[in-house]
Amino acid sequence: MKNTFGTSVCTTLFGESHGAEIGAVLDGMAPGVRVDEGWIASRLALRRPAGDISTGRREADAFRIASGVKDGRTTGTPICILIPNGDARSGDYESWRGLARPGHADWTGYCKFHGFEDWRGGGHFSGRLTAPLVAAGAIAQAALAGRGIRIGTHLARAAGVEDRPFGDLEVDLAALENLPFAMLDGGAAERAQAAIRDAASAGDSVGGVLETAVLGLPAGVGEPWFDTVEGVLAHALFSIPGVKGVEFGAGFALAEMRGSGANDAFRETTGGRVATATNRAGGVNGGITNGMPLVVRCAVKPTPSIAREQETVDFLKGGNAVLELRGRHDPAIVHRARAVADAVVALALCDLLALRFGTDWLAGEKGGTP
Amino acid sequence: MKNTFGTSVCTTLFGESHGAEIGAVLDGMAPGVRVDEGWIASRLALRRPAGDISTGRREADAFRIASGVKDGRTTGTPICILIPNGDARSGDYESWRGLARPGHADWTGYCKFHGFEDWRGGGHFSGRLTAPLVAAGAIAQAALAGRGIRIGTHLARAAGVEDRPFGDLEVDLAALENLPFAMLDGGAAERAQAAIRDAASAGDSVGGVLETAVLGLPAGVGEPWFDTVEGVLAHALFSIPGVKGVEFGAGFALAEMRGSGANDAFRETTGGRVATATNRAGGVNGGITNGMPLVVRCAVKPTPSIAREQETVDFLKGGNAVLELRGRHDPAIVHRARAVADAVVALALCDLLALRFGTDWLAGEKGGTP
Amino acid sequence: MKNTFGTSVCTTLFGESHGAEIGAVLDGMAPGVRVDEGWIASRLALRRPAGDISTGRREADAFRIASGVKDGRTTGTPICILIPNGDARSGDYESWRGLARPGHADWTGYCKFHGFEDWRGGGHFSGRLTAPLVAAGAIAQAALAGRGIRIGTHLARAAGVEDRPFGDLEVDLAALENLPFAMLDGGAAERAQAAIRDAASAGDSVGGVLETAVLGLPAGVGEPWFDTVEGVLAHALFSIPGVKGVEFGAGFALAEMRGSGANDAFRETTGGRVATATNRAGGVNGGITNGMPLVVRCAVKPTPSIAREQETVDFLKGGNAVLELRGRHDPAIVHRARAVADAVVALALCDLLALRFGTDWLAGEKGGTP
Amino acid sequence: MKNTFGTSVCTTLFGESHGAEIGAVLDGMAPGVRVDEGWIASRLALRRPAGDISTGRREADAFRIASGVKDGRTTGTPICILIPNGDARSGDYESWRGLARPGHADWTGYCKFHGFEDWRGGGHFSGRLTAPLVAAGAIAQAALAGRGIRIGTHLARAAGVEDRPFGDLEVDLAALENLPFAMLDGGAAERAQAAIRDAASAGDSVGGVLETAVLGLPAGVGEPWFDTVEGVLAHALFSIPGVKGVEFGAGFALAEMRGSGANDAFRETTGGRVATATNRAGGVNGGITNGMPLVVRCAVKPTPSIAREQETVDFLKGGNAVLELRGRHDPAIVHRARAVADAVVALALCDLLALRFGTDWLAGEKGGTP
Repeated sequence: MKNTFGTSVCTTLFGESHGAEIGAVLDGMAPGVRVDEGWIASRLALRRPAGDISTGRREADAFRIASGVKDGRTTGTPICILIPNGDARSGDYESWRGLARPGHADWTGYCKFHGFEDWRGGGHFSGRLTAPLVAAGAIAQAALAGRGIRIGTHLARAAGVEDRPFGDLEVDLAALENLPFAMLDGGAAERAQAAIRDAASAGDSVGGVLETAVLGLPAGVGEPWFDTVEGVLAHALFSIPGVKGVEFGAGFALAEMRGSGANDAFRETTGGRVATATNRAGGVNGGITNGMPLVVRCAVKPTPSIAREQETVDFLKGGNAVLELRGRHDPAIVHRARAVADAVVALALCDLLALRFGTDWLAGEKGGTP
Repeated sequence: MKNTFGTSVCTTLFGESHGAEIGAVLDGMAPGVRVDEGWIASRLALRRPAGDISTGRREADAFRIASGVKDGRTTGTPICILIPNGDARSGDYESWRGLARPGHADWTGYCKFHGFEDWRGGGHFSGRLTAPLVAAGAIAQAALAGRGIRIGTHLARAAGVEDRPFGDLEVDLAALENLPFAMLDGGAAERAQAAIRDAASAGDSVGGVLETAVLGLPAGVGEPWFDTVEGVLAHALFSIPGVKGVEFGAGFALAEMRGSGANDAFRETTGGRVATATNRAGGVNGGITNGMPLVVRCAVKPTPSIAREQETVDFLKGGNAVLELRGRHDPAIVHRARAVADAVVALALCDLLALRFGTDWLAGEKGGTP
Repeated sequence: MKNTFGTSVCTTLFGESHGAEIGAVLDGMAPGVRVDEGWIASRLALRRPAGDISTGRREADAFRIASGVKDGRTTGTPICILIPNGDARSGDYESWRGLARPGHADWTGYCKFHGFEDWRGGGHFSGRLTAPLVAAGAIAQAALAGRGIRIGTHLARAAGVEDRPFGDLEVDLAALENLPFAMLDGGAAERAQAAIRDAASAGDSVGGVLETAVLGLPAGVGEPWFDTVEGVLAHALFSIPGVKGVEFGAGFALAEMRGSGANDAFRETTGGRVATATNRAGGVNGGITNGMPLVVRCAVKPTPSIAREQETVDFLKGGNAVLELRGRHDPAIVHRARAVADAVVALALCDLLALRFGTDWLAGEKGGTP
Repeated sequence: MKNTFGTSVCTTLFGESHGAEIGAVLDGMAPGVRVDEGWIASRLALRRPAGDISTGRREADAFRIASGVKDGRTTGTPICILIPNGDARSGDYESWRGLARPGHADWTGYCKFHGFEDWRGGGHFSGRLTAPLVAAGAIAQAALAGRGIRIGTHLARAAGVEDRPFGDLEVDLAALENLPFAMLDGGAAERAQAAIRDAASAGDSVGGVLETAVLGLPAGVGEPWFDTVEGVLAHALFSIPGVKGVEFGAGFALAEMRGSGANDAFRETTGGRVATATNRAGGVNGGITNGMPLVVRCAVKPTPSIAREQETVDFLKGGNAVLELRGRHDPAIVHRARAVADAVVALALCDLLALRFGTDWLAGEKGGTP
């Protein structure tokens, strides 16, 4: 399926960094889901580069919905979202054609596409394509919200600065919706942004860890083998440029625990509902949701584009070379990627939920009726 | 697709811990790949519980290949591998039916299957199903070997004990094939096994980290979005029971680095081949293999079955309860899971390679001809 | 996916005509569906060769269910059905190895599998594999019956003899369940069987047309493009050996009509239900079910194995050759294929319905509870 | 996958008849395939309504390629083709909202999408969406041509008039590329067009049979079960609006033959190549191509929109009603659908070929290098 993800709710991405338009097709979404363009724009705004901790490239992200929405509701047929590319400066890139930027896909793109790839600005590999992904995800998030399912991502770490852990998720997820820099601890947010600026001024870049929580997921979603919740989400999350690790619940820390300290005890709560006293499993047992909040973390590497001289090869002319990147680059993308993580998780969950409960389920209790 | 994984080379798992037979169907494998039953048996042996650091359940894993192999070669049509279950003691399990074992899928299985699931011994969720997975993977490994692609997994950490890092991969992967306990450092192996015994004698269990390396992968395999090498492999790896985190190359450590320290410089090597001086990317840039060794790590949680009293609920009768597990359990599964990781990585790579180069490619240079 | 069909309810076939066992894995079936082995056996009996109008090869079709069923109910996890091959005489086939039997897959199998294929008795291509397909389909039919959906296939034509058209479908589908030779008109049944015997005694074979009707399908199932009901069903139906044409409703006859004669007028019926006065569309408009009976017809070619001398090539030694088939062959398969058509339609519909209404829907109104 | 078709080469359709833009995403096409906009335009011209035998709606089909093509070559990443809708008159449709047009998807769309569907002009169901399908198919046809594979469709029958059968396919396929009305026999073309005009003047419509031939396909493509060449092609072909039957080779006529008359004798031809003396199998044995021309026929029903009064229901208000369609309608679509059949066959074959031979195969012998 390649650039398409999903079985029942499917997302297809297309476009290149310096092409005229980029976009996404979201297919299989239930009919009757409200589509609020202001909401989509607000999600794109969270992803958009801003201030001095982002690339100087400024894109309006003036999306338009070419199909699948009528009178502010999804029709149930494919939703195509288009975003024109405005502020592309291909000239910046032409000077280093053939020089494989370390940490980028220039070389692997060449191996796969034999030089026919649109390499300008990373082409189809560009983080720019996460803009339509965020827009598609915003619709998915709206559908989930209609079922009481809420998603939020904070920067558990950025530039070596740690945020406070998630606390009351109701409160924290609400707060995150309005936080332009997604750290729950204001002091940490200041320090992290300062650390990003430091790296930038050193001609360098930083990474971080995204932590996403999902509240309100029903128990019993996912499959025992292969299409586990973890597997399906990780499959999608590794598409976010720079993500090199994905863990659920206590994740890698579980490897250091003993079973008695790792297991989550089951307990009855109000109304006889089954819960766990702790949530080291991140809401998933045996590949299937257990009704607790889903918690997933993504390691995001530092932006590979840095202003320093780097050693590389010229894969067109042959031989070693030295590369000095000009152009406009992000000293970090992790703070922008939080909106992408929300989107990707929302899209993957919509797919799992539609498979489990049918295509109309995402329209909400009232089946999309106003 | 649920219990089936793959697009061109597909693996389907079926069976339950206490059913008569479990098995796998491997479809799409190239015709002409040698199938050596001794090799498959040797892979199953690496997974099989052994000694005092494993469950007392002993299974002969006497597999038989019901289809898809003729005269010691794959035919190109679906290969069904069947393994009879011998040493099951369902009685052990009946006493706690309704008591959700912490860290297990009893509760989530009930939420999904409404009580119709075969819950005995974990049923379809049982780690027992990794036996046919290893058998199918052994065929995939043989196919890859015919193309010069080799896979090996060591326990980077187990029970808190760290193995030495991978060194010369040619040597290390060869060594791993014959190591019953997959640590490259003999001293560490001793200490880790002692630590597992300690946990066992305390009625407890431990986890660890698997590190898999793949040598000889061609560059240019994988997709920019969604079907990235990382995404596809992680999708499959999260099926391994107990895996709660997957990272590639330097993984989560990358989140703490600066770009100048994280990027792998490209360098020309012998014959003008492009390589990288370091391999923090784990062999993948932009979702696509770059020709360097693929390195992936899986966090394996401690076995959830422990001999201590645990708090839980009775989801059939309602109310809280205390559970004391009898039966035979593994104080650790991470050392057995190394064979499963090899298998899963081999199967997922076969799928990616067959998609890229066609269905016959896996038959090797000589197209499977003797 | 190759030998797997379906997205939410998936069927995988494996095995060869002369292998030890053949089988199917049915994955994604709702938990709680009754599995009556007598019912499965009765469906296999309808497919089994019998009397003087079928091959002399006699198979007991003594299936066993290796997984996915507990206490007479589906568990919701993969159901593996195994059928041992008993009465295979490979010796019959060895004499003509290399001689491409006209109308068979010997030559195309060789082109695809390069000689590694198990060619004995047609190997994986053999109609023998429809036995596990019928068994899997029987479970699907039982699930559909729990939702009031019934399927039946008659021989609209066989050996040039025409059956009466479908009349009252409630009555006709009930009658078909017990008819060993699926013609609704007893006189036609006699004449058709006589015609098959005639062909057999002339060393020749005949074909026919299967007509399948489905009663009780809800409206609104299927997709506008690609995954149309017609497309999904045809995809599966063309797997039935010998099927070379598939048409819905009036099918090819529609091409000769005018719109005024082809359109089905919509009419309100009891309870305000929308129906059509005629059913030339076969229950599908725009790729989506309209609530009328689904009607699909398959053209089945005459059995390619005939007792006459035939011209062919020897693709191993090269050169033209003359082939005289010995062995035991069916003078017709169309009368046996009716059970296969029921099965394939049931499996494909289960997939479409589970995608539309969720995985539990097939468990019936009461969710599989007795 | 719904509105997406294919596994390795995938086509996604989006848009509505009266939306701003419709389009397609073609993913997985090999890099380096020439994209000639004039060629695409010429294919769209063959599909476009023209003269007095088509709807009065006139669309310029001024497509633009938003991604995936650079310097006149495919890049290997998703190709998005967009076509603005110009000449839509929604007012024509509003008057009959709620009245289910017989033979259309108004009612089934309502059952599936609960009234949220964009019903204007048929919305997403509209034949208008075949325009981007033809554009995507044109790129697929170009890729196939680079491998010597040629496709052409004639109207075997239209409005009850029969064309001459295919003769020398090299000649006939070349001729068809330039024939605006795809009948090989000029006299038949005249008579068929006259018959279409007759139907139009009677306020009625007609259908026909498309016959597509493919020359140059390698042997050994397709799968024994489920993903048979017939199954995959039929799956896609039933998406063409109005198609109600699909048959291969002699198709339904085979059901009336005896085996001795139906089998195609294999014969050696020049260079020891294996061929068949006749081609009643339409180039496919056992689901796999045999190297002979692939021949497939589609029954196209008469256009459901007719100018006569029709009985129907009002599914919004309830009750029976009489419908008189105004607006601009095609008295036949079969002659326009020939370009769609070429496109669909090309796209489905590209998928099968890329799966078989790898993603680069479609770039041609020279791998896309000029």
